[in-house]
Amino acid sequence: MGEISLGMDRSTIGWAARDPSGVLSPYSYILRETGPEDVYIRVICCGICHTDIHQIKNDLGASSYPMVPGHEVVGEVVEVGSDVSKFKVGDCVGVGTIVGCCKTCGPCKADVEQYCNKRIWSYNDVYTDGKPTQGGFSRAMVVDQKFVVKIPKGMAQEQAAPLLCAGVTVYSPLAHFGLKHISGLRGGILGLGGVGHMGVKLSKAMGHHVTVISSSAKKKAEALDHLKADAYIVSSDATQMHEAEDTLDYIIDTVPVFHPLEPYLSLLKHDGKLILTGVISTPLQFMSPMVMLGRKVITGSFIGSMKETEEMLDFCNEKGITSTIEVVKMDYINTAFKRLEKNDVRYRFVVDVAGSKLD
Amino acid sequence: MGEISLGMDRSTIGWAARDPSGVLSPYSYILRETGPEDVYIRVICCGICHTDIHQIKNDLGASSYPMVPGHEVVGEVVEVGSDVSKFKVGDCVGVGTIVGCCKTCGPCKADVEQYCNKRIWSYNDVYTDGKPTQGGFSRAMVVDQKFVVKIPKGMAQEQAAPLLCAGVTVYSPLAHFGLKHISGLRGGILGLGGVGHMGVKLSKAMGHHVTVISSSAKKKAEALDHLKADAYIVSSDATQMHEAEDTLDYIIDTVPVFHPLEPYLSLLKHDGKLILTGVISTPLQFMSPMVMLGRKVITGSFIGSMKETEEMLDFCNEKGITSTIEVVKMDYINTAFKRLEKNDVRYRFVVDVAGSKLD
Repeated sequence: MGEISLGMDRSTIGWAARDPSGVLSPYSYILRETGPEDVYIRVICCGICHTDIHQIKNDLGASSYPMVPGHEVVGEVVEVGSDVSKFKVGDCVGVGTIVGCCKTCGPCKADVEQYCNKRIWSYNDVYTDGKPTQGGFSRAMVVDQKFVVKIPKGMAQEQAAPLLCAGVTVYSPLAHFGLKHISGLRGGILGLGGVGHMGVKLSKAMGHHVTVISSSAKKKAEALDHLKADAYIVSSDATQMHEAEDTLDYIIDTVPVFHPLEPYLSLLKHDGKLILTGVISTPLQFMSPMVMLGRKVITGSFIGSMKETEEMLDFCNEKGITSTIEVVKMDYINTAFKRLEKNDVRYRFVVDVAGSKLD
Repeated sequence: MGEISLGMDRSTIGWAARDPSGVLSPYSYILRETGPEDVYIRVICCGICHTDIHQIKNDLGASSYPMVPGHEVVGEVVEVGSDVSKFKVGDCVGVGTIVGCCKTCGPCKADVEQYCNKRIWSYNDVYTDGKPTQGGFSRAMVVDQKFVVKIPKGMAQEQAAPLLCAGVTVYSPLAHFGLKHISGLRGGILGLGGVGHMGVKLSKAMGHHVTVISSSAKKKAEALDHLKADAYIVSSDATQMHEAEDTLDYIIDTVPVFHPLEPYLSLLKHDGKLILTGVISTPLQFMSPMVMLGRKVITGSFIGSMKETEEMLDFCNEKGITSTIEVVKMDYINTAFKRLEKNDVRYRFVVDVAGSKLD
């Protein structure tokens, strides 16, 4: 049986970038032994996130090659370590952005290990054994059980994948800032990409009135008809923006490039929150009275904790929320990256890893 | 009796700026009739706030002259309108920054009328009757009872004055953001002026460990010995700043001029809050990862509500908190403004209005 021999064999194969050109190609490497707390996972599928592009192209200046990206991983448990209690062989599980943390600092103790300064990324990082971490565009991964979540029964595997990063990225701030349980709030989703489309779905499922704010009218029908947003504002239309001033309780800002904050701060009611989820490499600006004279909050949120990931998966399963995806095979991944760079996807690529030839 | 004749006579006298030179001199004007909801107040004393300088000098470009400044007013009730239930003649009362609001909008209904877009300033504004509002450096004021608070018994009048603006400016965010009731928090006070010194006193009284952050070591002994702060950091000292990284739950930023935010964001723990209380006329900047990768919050707070002002006065009375002041007569006010511009006051000037010759 293929699965069991995988559990024994430590060699695996993934698709790796070799240099900042970011082109992925087959790459063989050795997985660590399945430690007492580890889970050996055969990858079923893996979503493509915008962050993957930054990493494979060394946009953030900290890339090591060869690099197998992929942090929206759904797989099947093939082998468990001696102290693993949470999972058994055959479970369908997910792995997200992080595979390690110090387990002793303030954030770790508060179950928000994503804010641990010693967090270990799923790929392009160094694990506690000194070896590079490699991501989910691969046959298999070995992951500490703390960073593995169960995919709820009844949830389609390929639709679960984007929830592990894009989904929890919007779920986490909605839960943490106490917005999730307040039905009738008026929320804004700024930017309608992979994260934004999950924002619309999750906010709607929380009973909120959801306005999509976008730079053009291009996605209006899509937002209103397909994603069931309640309203749509074109940010360059001064009249629309003026009419919407002082109407929103929160905005989830998913735009990953520089943009002025004032226009969006002005859409917020007093005590409204502007929640940044996109890493931006240039400084953002705001005028202090815009914030002070309405006690408005500028904050940010970074993916989500393992606990929130589990909650989010249950919430999505219960509410029937799925991500909107385009499934591709591994040999299409370089084309998929190119299309994602041009925002030419509705809304997330997921690679059918198990169904692809990798070597 | 002088008080009663004042109550009858609508003419009064204050010290007004006549132009952007900001020099104050005696000015006679007419108070409105004491309406059903109004309280006629004979001014006892009035604190000098940094904002007064901006107003009298037209720094914000919206000044009307003649302008009688003063929004930290303590006085005695001399006459009450027919529908006034909260006050009686002889009560010692306070008036702060605001004397009107729409009473119907979201913030007004939520008892945070300081965020009402139609709030009316205590001076340099236009009242509902179309007449200019005039502040507390005057013999008397007529104010809607909603914007009048009782000064608790046992609190010295001249020490109560600065609490009405500087005091509530720091009390409000500490209460609103849920910090007041968490003993043992580690708070930072950035800038040690009129607002900052109240910040140290209030945070200490809430059981917090308080660090003063200042641009020089000049105020160190003062902060630690006189105000009883627990620690002092010189912001230009890279070693001190580095050692204090990731240690504070909140910073109350009282600096009213441009300053970089990153050094202070880095002092905050995850989920820490940077709370701006100073109106700054140039944009402030921050890098989004500094906020996102710790779910840190940049927010601002603007004075406080009438409800919070009452709570704060009771809190100060109960804890024995007083403001540190220098009492002067009205004929010293122009000198006091000049000294305040050079931060040459420890920490607030209060004008003994009732004890001064005004004409």
